Amino acid sequence: YEMATRTLWLLVLVSLSVCICVCRASSTQEDSAMENIVTEKKAEESHRQDSADLLIFIMLLTLTILTIWLFKHRRFRFLHETGLAMIYGVLVGVVLRYGIHVPRDISNATLSCPVNASPATLLINVSGKFYEYTLKGEINANEVDDVQDNEMLRKVTFDPEVFFNILLPPIIFHAGYSLKRRHFFRNMGSILAYAFLGTVISCFVIGLLMYGCVMLMKQVGQLDGDFFFTDCLFFGAIVSATDPVTVLAIFNELQVDVDLYALLFGESVLNDAVAVVLSSSIVAYQPQGDNSHTFEVMAMLKSFGMFLGVFSGSFALGVATGVFTFTKLRDFPLLETALFFLMSWSTFLLAEACGFTGVVAVLFCGITQAHYTFNNLSPDSQDRTKQLFELLNFLAENFIFSYMGLTLFTFQNHVFNPMFIVGAFVAVFLGRAANIYPLSFLLNLGRRNKIRSNFQHMMMFAGLRGAMTFALSIRDTATYARQMMFSTTLLVVFFTVWICGGGTTQMLSCQRIRYLSNPLLVLLSERRSTKHESAWLFRIWYNFDHNYLKPILTHSGPPLTATLPPCCGPLARILTSPQAYENECQLKDDDSDLILTDGDINLTYGDITVSTDASGAHTSSGPAFAGGATSDDLDRELTYGDHELVMRGTRLVLPMDDSEPPFTDPHHRLRM
Amino acid sequence: YEMATRTLWLLVLVSLSVCICVCRASSTQEDSAMENIVTEKKAEESHRQDSADLLIFIMLLTLTILTIWLFKHRRFRFLHETGLAMIYGVLVGVVLRYGIHVPRDISNATLSCPVNASPATLLINVSGKFYEYTLKGEINANEVDDVQDNEMLRKVTFDPEVFFNILLPPIIFHAGYSLKRRHFFRNMGSILAYAFLGTVISCFVIGLLMYGCVMLMKQVGQLDGDFFFTDCLFFGAIVSATDPVTVLAIFNELQVDVDLYALLFGESVLNDAVAVVLSSSIVAYQPQGDNSHTFEVMAMLKSFGMFLGVFSGSFALGVATGVFTFTKLRDFPLLETALFFLMSWSTFLLAEACGFTGVVAVLFCGITQAHYTFNNLSPDSQDRTKQLFELLNFLAENFIFSYMGLTLFTFQNHVFNPMFIVGAFVAVFLGRAANIYPLSFLLNLGRRNKIRSNFQHMMMFAGLRGAMTFALSIRDTATYARQMMFSTTLLVVFFTVWICGGGTTQMLSCQRIRYLSNPLLVLLSERRSTKHESAWLFRIWYNFDHNYLKPILTHSGPPLTATLPPCCGPLARILTSPQAYENECQLKDDDSDLILTDGDINLTYGDITVSTDASGAHTSSGPAFAGGATSDDLDRELTYGDHELVMRGTRLVLPMDDSEPPFTDPHHRLRM
Repeated sequence: YEMATRTLWLLVLVSLSVCICVCRASSTQEDSAMENIVTEKKAEESHRQDSADLLIFIMLLTLTILTIWLFKHRRFRFLHETGLAMIYGVLVGVVLRYGIHVPRDISNATLSCPVNASPATLLINVSGKFYEYTLKGEINANEVDDVQDNEMLRKVTFDPEVFFNILLPPIIFHAGYSLKRRHFFRNMGSILAYAFLGTVISCFVIGLLMYGCVMLMKQVGQLDGDFFFTDCLFFGAIVSATDPVTVLAIFNELQVDVDLYALLFGESVLNDAVAVVLSSSIVAYQPQGDNSHTFEVMAMLKSFGMFLGVFSGSFALGVATGVFTFTKLRDFPLLETALFFLMSWSTFLLAEACGFTGVVAVLFCGITQAHYTFNNLSPDSQDRTKQLFELLNFLAENFIFSYMGLTLFTFQNHVFNPMFIVGAFVAVFLGRAANIYPLSFLLNLGRRNKIRSNFQHMMMFAGLRGAMTFALSIRDTATYARQMMFSTTLLVVFFTVWICGGGTTQMLSCQRIRYLSNPLLVLLSERRSTKHESAWLFRIWYNFDHNYLKPILTHSGPPLTATLPPCCGPLARILTSPQAYENECQLKDDDSDLILTDGDINLTYGDITVSTDASGAHTSSGPAFAGGATSDDLDRELTYGDHELVMRGTRLVLPMDDSEPPFTDPHHRLRM
Repeated sequence: YEMATRTLWLLVLVSLSVCICVCRASSTQEDSAMENIVTEKKAEESHRQDSADLLIFIMLLTLTILTIWLFKHRRFRFLHETGLAMIYGVLVGVVLRYGIHVPRDISNATLSCPVNASPATLLINVSGKFYEYTLKGEINANEVDDVQDNEMLRKVTFDPEVFFNILLPPIIFHAGYSLKRRHFFRNMGSILAYAFLGTVISCFVIGLLMYGCVMLMKQVGQLDGDFFFTDCLFFGAIVSATDPVTVLAIFNELQVDVDLYALLFGESVLNDAVAVVLSSSIVAYQPQGDNSHTFEVMAMLKSFGMFLGVFSGSFALGVATGVFTFTKLRDFPLLETALFFLMSWSTFLLAEACGFTGVVAVLFCGITQAHYTFNNLSPDSQDRTKQLFELLNFLAENFIFSYMGLTLFTFQNHVFNPMFIVGAFVAVFLGRAANIYPLSFLLNLGRRNKIRSNFQHMMMFAGLRGAMTFALSIRDTATYARQMMFSTTLLVVFFTVWICGGGTTQMLSCQRIRYLSNPLLVLLSERRSTKHESAWLFRIWYNFDHNYLKPILTHSGPPLTATLPPCCGPLARILTSPQAYENECQLKDDDSDLILTDGDINLTYGDITVSTDASGAHTSSGPAFAGGATSDDLDRELTYGDHELVMRGTRLVLPMDDSEPPFTDPHHRLRM
């Protein structure tokens, strides 16, 4: 057992060193020969180089996975996989930066053509032959000499668009797909407030503070380039996207209060969407005339209109494709899974192609698909899609975090300004505080189930910055301001993931937030809290959804003929599927239960299972952490608990139960 | 039901037209404004364009999936999904080519710099600012004017390296992973002969015939550029890679003879590997001196040595990583699946980075992992990996085929030469014949279970060209010869996939190859044929594998302490895992059975299940095609068959049974 593990580690390390060697070797093997062979060789070299670069990342991921496994095995909870991926990334970054010296490549000539434009495509006439060149970007005048030295480092640097088009979509989709639907909808009002109002508040507070900081720096003479107010606001927008994946993973393991979980998760998911649209609106703020960095009402209104337009457009697009992904290929799970996957991705691309925000569209597509389309899938496909998205999310997330670590050393244009960094940390802290505390106070005025102050502190503490902040900040690093932002953002992410993420368990016990390692207790405590809390917004939504949307969009729910007024009879008959009639007797019964029955409790419990899958990495970590002896006890208690519920006359077919991803193994479900 | 399907179709078509519109729109929206905004807008446009391009492909795939489903539903068997994907690709290609006119883009300036080199990176000094450009490739002098017109078409054209680095690996890996292991190993000798000798014969026969054809063309004056003998050989190598995915899918559905299946599948899989290495060896043939296209013994020997070196290196690397992917993360299926996936991909990248051939490495990695590592996975991960690779294979395959259809119209440098095309078709036909018939004759001298003449005709007929041929031919289209090859290859692929693929059922019945829709008959016929056929190569391999390799590399098999001679006792004890001891009693028993027991029959039957998965798309198509009434009959008969076997004293734990991917649903397995 131990031997095998060691062999694997050895293999990984050997491969890592091989690929670093190849990196080094491939950059030195340039010899001059016939022109034809040279270009062919160069193409081969560049191909090899690309393979070696990718290999580095894959080996990093492998290392991360192995270490995570070790940690889980040893029940070591201070460092989450994302933090770990970052550490490995930093280490490899150091090696690439300082361990490998690339000799100057003579063939990279600098041309000083007397042109007065920088077209996207260049055709260059070299002694009769035409060569095509594509624009890669602008380079600072003082870095021109470095370009050749750092060829290798730049090779390891990906096109930022890769993050937006390939790595972010699965993460965001998975987040939407695994939103704790019931608790999410129950806390919808608060979540929307935190996500929309809170993000905007946080953005402006951070923006203003940073503007003060930048003004101060200008006074002291610490600023080497332009830094406008819009830049400050942009910075505010990108660091307002929270990503508490580390915290939520620990919440899952410890079975922390479900409402706190729903608030945090829901906020952070919607948060990302708001931050993306907000930042692009800020970039679009372009006052007319020469003085392009002054305040102008029209431009601001335009930006605001753009924010609303893009957000609602993306929302509508995502919901539309989510709803219309009817899959009737039940007999062919492979086709079904493929179609489901393609439709999700095409939502993203369609939104981007239309000028909307793909991230937002894919998020709402995920939420809608989980709520409606999921029910139409065959059980086999339900498992497959869940597992597929889980895997994609896991890989993409760890890739981004290890890349983050790597860029700390391999990125070429870092601008670390101590004053700006200190200012940013203070601003981020205050911005988060200005989001959570005032809003919680206001929300508590309307909520029956108050957000207690220890919950507020926990939400404040869990304001980690992650993948989205990074992707937004690396997207454009052309100007001095953006470079400084990028470097600072990187530090903010590192700090929050390592310090806040690592201290979650301490913080939980410090704030005396109960975490129940015994699911039955969660069940019972839920029962207590559920009765006296049922937001009107949720109630209206639930009735509409259950009576009209579900029957139209899925096979489940009562037939429309039963829920629509009699005058709509013919329409109802057209829209109702034959399968829905079969459910009639059974569901009508449920329907009369309304929302708050004993059934809810069991359902809540079912939700925990879903949330356990939400973090991606912890599907079956529950049993492992529960340990051998406890797990049996749990089983016994749960059986007893179930029994008790049945005794009190609770049915197992519950109002919203059909929207839950089913688990083939009932024990798996219960143990969670 | 029907309504929903129609809605989905509508949605797909709308999206397709939207993205084509965006394609068109985005190319026209260039207006002149401030420089800064222009570049930003340009970046946004290019991003939109990329999204729209990808969207086209995703919509194509979606369309394909929907149509496949319709075909499967209606039991329409003449057109395979790959053929269908090609047709859709052609249609969209026509629209892109002739339906959309792109106005001349003024901002793409042509520079005529007085430089005498074409470096990979160019720095251009535009009024004080430095811009970086990267080399994209050489352009024919007479096409310089077209470049701007065809900007859009070129955008739809992917970097050929994408095929090699992203799309081919999953296809090849999946092929290796789902090789019908038992039948593959039983026919190993013949398969290796067809794959190695046969491919080389076919390559040289086609090469010589094409050289004759090219000479003739030169005489007639039909040749507009250089075409050397090495080019002819290269063409021979790339069109020697067969890809009978269409044929095998039909074989699966009809339960055609398993030996024929194994021969065809095994040949085509290894074939690809040989063709890749062969073509790269031919490209590497570089006689010294000025006269670079004459015959030279040293250069040929060098090429031959390179072939052997690269092939065996890739083989060793693939087998090594396949064997050493010990995964001991049984408690965490997600981590396990991720690790498995990453290790498979890193094999590919490692091989490419080391200068070996990734395709070959990943193939043997797949074979080894299926044989050894698969057994160490937890059941959950076994399902997950199987489904994941199945999905990836399905998507990649259909993507390549639809792209193939697209390039028929969007590729810029087509050279359709009627004489060359006719010559190529004749040469491909004769090359295949020179591979199959003589080799079959020679093999039949040694085989106890002869390859009958109708099998030979079927193998001849099933010599389809597919993804690998396309990927190899698109990789380099710089010279006139390569462009002509590419166009011709495309036609060969189209013809074989549509005509040969579509006519498989006709050919089967014409050649009177029994296909048994009743699995029990397969079972019984297998029993007859199994007894008197057991290749010595297979027998030696099996014993070695079962007694030594399996115990070392997996938890299954007898403990080494039982199989190694007593003198090796201490070593054996170190290498044996505790789990192996538990199997001891049971497996020792099996061990004494040797290979040919009644058990084999059941096992063979199990293999059919595996083969059904091999085609990727047909996992559960069996039951659907069997139809309602028949399926029940089958069940009854199968139960009876099982019963009969048990009556004769066959155990259900079989020698190699552990290497079979287990299926959770036993009915699923039996019905196949």
